[in-house]
Amino acid sequence: MNMKVRAAVAHGNGLPLTIEDVHLRPPADDEVLVELKASGLCHTDLFINEGKFPLKLPAILGHEGSGVVLECGKDVKNVKAGDHVILNNVPHCGHCRCCRSDFTNYCEDIALARLRPSAFTWNGEPLMTMGQAATFASHTVLRSYNLTVIPNEMPFESAALVPCGVMTGVGAVLFNAKVRSGSSVLVWGIGSIGLNVLQSARLAGAGRIIAIDTCASKEQAARLFGATDFINPNDLDEPLAQHITTLLGGSADYAFECVGNVEVLKQAVELVNPFWGVCLAVGVPPFNQQISLPATSFYFGRTVRGTFIGDANPVTDTPKILDWYRQGKLRLDELVTHRLAQDEINQGFELMKRGESIRSVIVY
Amino acid sequence: MNMKVRAAVAHGNGLPLTIEDVHLRPPADDEVLVELKASGLCHTDLFINEGKFPLKLPAILGHEGSGVVLECGKDVKNVKAGDHVILNNVPHCGHCRCCRSDFTNYCEDIALARLRPSAFTWNGEPLMTMGQAATFASHTVLRSYNLTVIPNEMPFESAALVPCGVMTGVGAVLFNAKVRSGSSVLVWGIGSIGLNVLQSARLAGAGRIIAIDTCASKEQAARLFGATDFINPNDLDEPLAQHITTLLGGSADYAFECVGNVEVLKQAVELVNPFWGVCLAVGVPPFNQQISLPATSFYFGRTVRGTFIGDANPVTDTPKILDWYRQGKLRLDELVTHRLAQDEINQGFELMKRGESIRSVIVY
Repeated sequence: MNMKVRAAVAHGNGLPLTIEDVHLRPPADDEVLVELKASGLCHTDLFINEGKFPLKLPAILGHEGSGVVLECGKDVKNVKAGDHVILNNVPHCGHCRCCRSDFTNYCEDIALARLRPSAFTWNGEPLMTMGQAATFASHTVLRSYNLTVIPNEMPFESAALVPCGVMTGVGAVLFNAKVRSGSSVLVWGIGSIGLNVLQSARLAGAGRIIAIDTCASKEQAARLFGATDFINPNDLDEPLAQHITTLLGGSADYAFECVGNVEVLKQAVELVNPFWGVCLAVGVPPFNQQISLPATSFYFGRTVRGTFIGDANPVTDTPKILDWYRQGKLRLDELVTHRLAQDEINQGFELMKRGESIRSVIVY
Repeated sequence: MNMKVRAAVAHGNGLPLTIEDVHLRPPADDEVLVELKASGLCHTDLFINEGKFPLKLPAILGHEGSGVVLECGKDVKNVKAGDHVILNNVPHCGHCRCCRSDFTNYCEDIALARLRPSAFTWNGEPLMTMGQAATFASHTVLRSYNLTVIPNEMPFESAALVPCGVMTGVGAVLFNAKVRSGSSVLVWGIGSIGLNVLQSARLAGAGRIIAIDTCASKEQAARLFGATDFINPNDLDEPLAQHITTLLGGSADYAFECVGNVEVLKQAVELVNPFWGVCLAVGVPPFNQQISLPATSFYFGRTVRGTFIGDANPVTDTPKILDWYRQGKLRLDELVTHRLAQDEINQGFELMKRGESIRSVIVY
């Protein structure tokens, strides 16, 4: 029997999301019905609604969330009714070519999920979701391997951020770049991802961690999360590159571009050591742009690399992140700057556009 | 007492090298006098003489060679008179910050060597060398840590190629990219480096190894060294990218650009898997050019990286290469296509420019 649930529906062209009654079918044998408790608002949701990312709209967005298991299909083994869970951004089917390799973050179910009929219908028509999570709905149905159980005492709002904002930033540092202790790290863009890069660089034992953002109000959070230095390029009397080079007495070991701006990425490449420097493109620039780099960028051993959800394996790495949180090594609670009701979701996107929030979280 | 030796001197502006009598001082306490037996001719020598690389000329070039130790300074421990040796392209002082880290191929002596007075004088003036090797001279004096002993039975011509052409290609595959067994590999530019990339990809167990060169005559060598396929882009009725994608049923796991052309590098980036693909910039493009890549290149996990002498440690990796050669796993003898006397050196560069040689070797 289909159930009626409340969902924020994205219509595209930058139009506000609207709160609608939609229908959700019961879970199949390998699926789970989850009641959402919290959902983070991510830039990618905004990008999709603005048409900068190809997903057919209208759709239910939202891809980082937490909730409670209400009902399990008969084949589900990894969770049970009443469990508190994270809805992972990347699935881990465990069976495909990627899940059986070192590249589990590219589980082929990401692509296959799009081809399966959605669990939601609206006005009698199937309604697209982003992946399977659809955390902007009050309830969702998804395959059980998208879920990780969390401790009952963990706040849902903090847990909700793990699957995307936290995993991406933490993984970029610890699983992808594998930052070395004592190294120097540059971080552009102090949003949710940037803060997680900062605190992971600290966890990795980096010596000098320089946060860069044109928004002066980000300094306090940057320092709280591990930045040893904060630079607002607008405050400088000299070019940023010169300032950083002087500060470090040379080039940096690592740079993380968390803005999604090709000019910033270009500068980040330039400022890492030409021999062993690693520059990670974490932010997502608009997809029709080009990045132009000097041919000398790759004369020696410099690396420029992308990352997808921090190259993390949700099965083995989510528990690590939860442990670090429990041990006080990773801050998650402080990432939540705004709590909103589902029908205030558009206010959350406005806060994001104005750079006033770290993470706004919908609390159901 | 200075000795008079014969050297091919580079004057720049693309002018022919001239054979001159130059003076060589005796070795200091930590230095060795080597009588050259063979020297490879590398594109970088040509580039420097053409002014595409910043080195003050006139100078004695040549940076891959082999010879016999004639005399050792009193502190030298690692070689003795009579030893057959390789003159390594990268030093390994063992003491600097890089030698004590994982980045031994960036031994700081590379930079410091430039600041020390050259061992050579010409017309009473110090004569620059490229690094310390100066393998275009009949004899040279260099620090002992630039030398690796080779078996007496190994041909000097084959050994001469190890420090640059072989080390760079082998190391790019085995020490930098760490090519996985069963993977697919694209190799642009089938010169000495490209052939070493091919045979190392075979050694690593790559499944599909595609050699790409616009010179049809390279096919035979490419296949001998491990290519499973050879593509001459000029022979195709369809775009190269489309042809390769059809051949592989998708994208490649690795690409090695061994040409030094930014347009080729751009294509190589495009053709590796957007998630886990690794593209190595092995060739050296002219230093004033730009490479323009789609911003989407780094949306997921793709890597673009440079390499310097194959990220090899001459102390630990040269013996590995010699072993593989002895075991028949790496071909070195077949890389030598032309043997020339020292005073025929300019013919060697002409062969290189016309793409007619794999490696020309000066035999002393």
